[in-house]
Amino acid sequence: MIQIIFLFSLLFLSEAAVQDFCVGDLTGPESPAGYSCKKAATVTVDDFVYSGLKMAGNTTNIISAAVTPAFSTQFPGLNGLGISMARLDLAPKGVIPMHTHPGASEVLVVVQGAILAGFVSSANDVYVKKLNKGDIMVFPQGLLHFQINARGIPSIAFVSFSSPIPGLQILDFALFANDLPSDLVEKTTFLDDATVKALKGVLGGTG
Amino acid sequence: MIQIIFLFSLLFLSEAAVQDFCVGDLTGPESPAGYSCKKAATVTVDDFVYSGLKMAGNTTNIISAAVTPAFSTQFPGLNGLGISMARLDLAPKGVIPMHTHPGASEVLVVVQGAILAGFVSSANDVYVKKLNKGDIMVFPQGLLHFQINARGIPSIAFVSFSSPIPGLQILDFALFANDLPSDLVEKTTFLDDATVKALKGVLGGTG
Amino acid sequence: MIQIIFLFSLLFLSEAAVQDFCVGDLTGPESPAGYSCKKAATVTVDDFVYSGLKMAGNTTNIISAAVTPAFSTQFPGLNGLGISMARLDLAPKGVIPMHTHPGASEVLVVVQGAILAGFVSSANDVYVKKLNKGDIMVFPQGLLHFQINARGIPSIAFVSFSSPIPGLQILDFALFANDLPSDLVEKTTFLDDATVKALKGVLGGTG
Amino acid sequence: MIQIIFLFSLLFLSEAAVQDFCVGDLTGPESPAGYSCKKAATVTVDDFVYSGLKMAGNTTNIISAAVTPAFSTQFPGLNGLGISMARLDLAPKGVIPMHTHPGASEVLVVVQGAILAGFVSSANDVYVKKLNKGDIMVFPQGLLHFQINARGIPSIAFVSFSSPIPGLQILDFALFANDLPSDLVEKTTFLDDATVKALKGVLGGTG
Amino acid sequence: MIQIIFLFSLLFLSEAAVQDFCVGDLTGPESPAGYSCKKAATVTVDDFVYSGLKMAGNTTNIISAAVTPAFSTQFPGLNGLGISMARLDLAPKGVIPMHTHPGASEVLVVVQGAILAGFVSSANDVYVKKLNKGDIMVFPQGLLHFQINARGIPSIAFVSFSSPIPGLQILDFALFANDLPSDLVEKTTFLDDATVKALKGVLGGTG
Amino acid sequence: MIQIIFLFSLLFLSEAAVQDFCVGDLTGPESPAGYSCKKAATVTVDDFVYSGLKMAGNTTNIISAAVTPAFSTQFPGLNGLGISMARLDLAPKGVIPMHTHPGASEVLVVVQGAILAGFVSSANDVYVKKLNKGDIMVFPQGLLHFQINARGIPSIAFVSFSSPIPGLQILDFALFANDLPSDLVEKTTFLDDATVKALKGVLGGTG
Repeated sequence: MIQIIFLFSLLFLSEAAVQDFCVGDLTGPESPAGYSCKKAATVTVDDFVYSGLKMAGNTTNIISAAVTPAFSTQFPGLNGLGISMARLDLAPKGVIPMHTHPGASEVLVVVQGAILAGFVSSANDVYVKKLNKGDIMVFPQGLLHFQINARGIPSIAFVSFSSPIPGLQILDFALFANDLPSDLVEKTTFLDDATVKALKGVLGGTG
Repeated sequence: MIQIIFLFSLLFLSEAAVQDFCVGDLTGPESPAGYSCKKAATVTVDDFVYSGLKMAGNTTNIISAAVTPAFSTQFPGLNGLGISMARLDLAPKGVIPMHTHPGASEVLVVVQGAILAGFVSSANDVYVKKLNKGDIMVFPQGLLHFQINARGIPSIAFVSFSSPIPGLQILDFALFANDLPSDLVEKTTFLDDATVKALKGVLGGTG
Repeated sequence: MIQIIFLFSLLFLSEAAVQDFCVGDLTGPESPAGYSCKKAATVTVDDFVYSGLKMAGNTTNIISAAVTPAFSTQFPGLNGLGISMARLDLAPKGVIPMHTHPGASEVLVVVQGAILAGFVSSANDVYVKKLNKGDIMVFPQGLLHFQINARGIPSIAFVSFSSPIPGLQILDFALFANDLPSDLVEKTTFLDDATVKALKGVLGGTG
Repeated sequence: MIQIIFLFSLLFLSEAAVQDFCVGDLTGPESPAGYSCKKAATVTVDDFVYSGLKMAGNTTNIISAAVTPAFSTQFPGLNGLGISMARLDLAPKGVIPMHTHPGASEVLVVVQGAILAGFVSSANDVYVKKLNKGDIMVFPQGLLHFQINARGIPSIAFVSFSSPIPGLQILDFALFANDLPSDLVEKTTFLDDATVKALKGVLGGTG
Repeated sequence: MIQIIFLFSLLFLSEAAVQDFCVGDLTGPESPAGYSCKKAATVTVDDFVYSGLKMAGNTTNIISAAVTPAFSTQFPGLNGLGISMARLDLAPKGVIPMHTHPGASEVLVVVQGAILAGFVSSANDVYVKKLNKGDIMVFPQGLLHFQINARGIPSIAFVSFSSPIPGLQILDFALFANDLPSDLVEKTTFLDDATVKALKGVLGGTG
Repeated sequence: MIQIIFLFSLLFLSEAAVQDFCVGDLTGPESPAGYSCKKAATVTVDDFVYSGLKMAGNTTNIISAAVTPAFSTQFPGLNGLGISMARLDLAPKGVIPMHTHPGASEVLVVVQGAILAGFVSSANDVYVKKLNKGDIMVFPQGLLHFQINARGIPSIAFVSFSSPIPGLQILDFALFANDLPSDLVEKTTFLDDATVKALKGVLGGTG
């Protein structure tokens, strides 16, 4: 009898306990804080588990490397939780080219091979280091950084971000793989016309 | 000549560019936002790299497991950057017992073996899943969760947190490994006196 | 005449002044930041006042105590405002059992009777104190804490939280009042099978 | 051929790169974090540019001044980006009367004329200064402040806020331009009945 | 033996668990995030308990009321924890005059008597309500609000804030109890010279 | 007499009202939240006013442009207040080259001349627009953007940032004006050796 009363109380308390999490509903309206929340009743453990980083990304490309993201768009369970991940695969000559994450700091752990990684600070100081298996390195928010295979075997790293939507801006894509007019690229980077047009050719840019 | 003028301008701009990061000075005053910042002039790339997760933790203990943290206390380069890591080693029967991180959400990636992981929500729902190599799982902030070796071989995971100071409260330690009087433990958990005293015995608690 | 022009200007300025508050519309989509906002034109003073803490909670239950929440789910006027409350009623032998709030710090003020309150830190230190009428105590975010009637008369406290959705995870409910399998409870808490099954029996858990 | 593969990879990466911004959709549901986001595919550069501050505000009014806001309601491109602006026009005798922004700090730059500006702190200290063209001044969040034309020619300033929804509460409007009953105004400000009623008359208040 | 190994592991884990809290050291340097942290080894339960709200404030004054704060300056245990409190005492004719908290939202609970409370929004809407014992009301951040004794007996309320440093700006003090020159008060409030000087006389202002 | 009692109460209340602001003490310890606070007793209005943006920056340099910052390092009154400014001067052929602010969104207002401004998003979309006097444009946090004189007369803009320490990373400086080895620049940008070395020559880089 007391148990039944108690369970009633239990239900009452549970009603108060909302929004430990907000699994993203990618079809609902987005807000500056992220995706809408999936209805609690439909959430299962599979919303909190993601297997998309299990397989190596395809490195048969110009950079011999792949970035496989697990941001809240791919893994909606992260929505609103302040964290996300990605997997880096670098074939023997692989390079993750110079890039930034506009909305997050990043920490990287090498799980196979070795990686030469670096970033440049606002004060224009350069921080570069060869990382071996098990080493971790942090890249402060928004700064240009890169990763290069440093051991001649396929290398793998997992990276984590301080936001479920860190963003990713790859320098060469931003400059050469869209319709930003060549003369604007040239004026704002001091690169010459031939260089800009050649890279636009390789990367599919126009203008 | 123009170059010299330009470099002067460069220096001026650089002076404006402060505090991309705040490498922790563990000897200075702490604030609610973290450690004091190490002087910028003394910061090197080694402040942003940590090798303390390279080696397996010692699992010859009662839980056959080890948690090796890379929080801002161990890895001061993380100070203020909103992220941190830890390494989990689970021997074949290893268990990371029920615990919480009061100040962060966590994402886990299995890099060797397999792990049964789970958490309980405020609404008292249970989310448990067996994770294989490459699977990732997120544990929302502050909720009780656990990890258990699920494959009979040494298993390893890297976990990341949405804060450089996530905290770590292991349930059994909080209840049985300090001087919280047994009668208070009993009243607030409904455990009986014999159980409480036995676990206090094993875990070194008093009172 | 000048007055009329001025009033026109006043209307213009008012148009700019939005979202001092966001009274929760519990039927709209939720985001990681909380509920959708009720249309401003329909907001009245009653959205900012809540009378649900006026009455004592029902303490005729196994804990001889009641927690009556005024979180944004019960009191939608709090939505987005960074604060919420609850009322604690403790009958003479009442106990608010060991619990955490995953998303908020808490401050408690005793308004009737006396309460023995305590929490355990990440560093495993224990902080316990008897609080008399008018005393206040703070419980840092996410840490295990409890409250026990300390004076043999009905005691009352109001507690406030640093979030409109603090969450509430009661340890015994998380372990023994759901379908978390007994063997997982045992492995992750070191409690024996008989203890776990007995408490599951009392609290309505299965598995 | 390699280029085609690479472009495929590029598309994949772009899919991961969401929500650098969240241009406000004023017709969608609002959350405590701001307006819903306009669909990314419909965003153009015009969403990030606003021309509403180009023209002087109408200063033919009781204060000989105008505040023209560019908050996220007027300029939805600011939604979620932590910043907004407004333009101040002060005719020769213009005054922006005592007011607060409940949700933001403000920084002001004089671009024409001169302005006497000031604020009062919680510690009741007064900070007043005459600002000339090019001077900037900061007003900490939520404090009473004002601006007065200080040079006898039309003066202009641009102000920026640390939030896209800073709010704006003009003291005289809050006291005298709504239906707050006169006796409540009198009791809470120590102003006498004649003064309150006279100002209510001028400003259009009732009660 | 296993126990000893385990305790070693326990110590190791505890070392990682820092800064659940940051009890304010009022003698150390302050940062924008609050006071410096007291050394962890010197923290006791008394740092988390405050008795300064136990006694009624002295209401023998011009407002027949008293505000007794428990902000982080008075109660350093709150430092960095996102919450604080205050006690309001209103003698039968007591009034807490029009004021704002620049840095926090507030929630009020009446514990004795009755209180007429209200606030004005940025949109210039007025929200006023008589609150009885047990009623709670929320005042959104930074908006002008007031409390008046509504029952002719001494009334008491506890208020909580969404910041350990909410600030407090009392309108009449800001206008009339400092050295803000009378002509500036007049120009920015439309009050006449006689009114301003009379109130400066009562409240101790100069200029 | 009542007045004296009241003033006593006033002092008491003022004691509670701390840290509306935290003027930076550039000689004290820094924390992740910014500079230490200057002692309140030494703060004057001059701490909140800055005249460093009054004069045009020197545009006799390679970019025919100047960025004059008013970040918390130059203007310590901004410390902790979530906002800062800078002045842009562009001579007739002036260009603010491609750059990012790792820690803030930016809003720009043209006050003289005309400016062609643009940014590239994470989704690699290009947003470019010619801005005339009085137009404002927002650049979301961390994204590559630029400004070019668009009218053949000296042009001026004021820009504001959503942080007192926005940071500033100029692409060409990060790549060519430090000791980042040429082969790393080449591998991570696909630029050829001649181009890299030529720009290193112009910009003073080594390696």
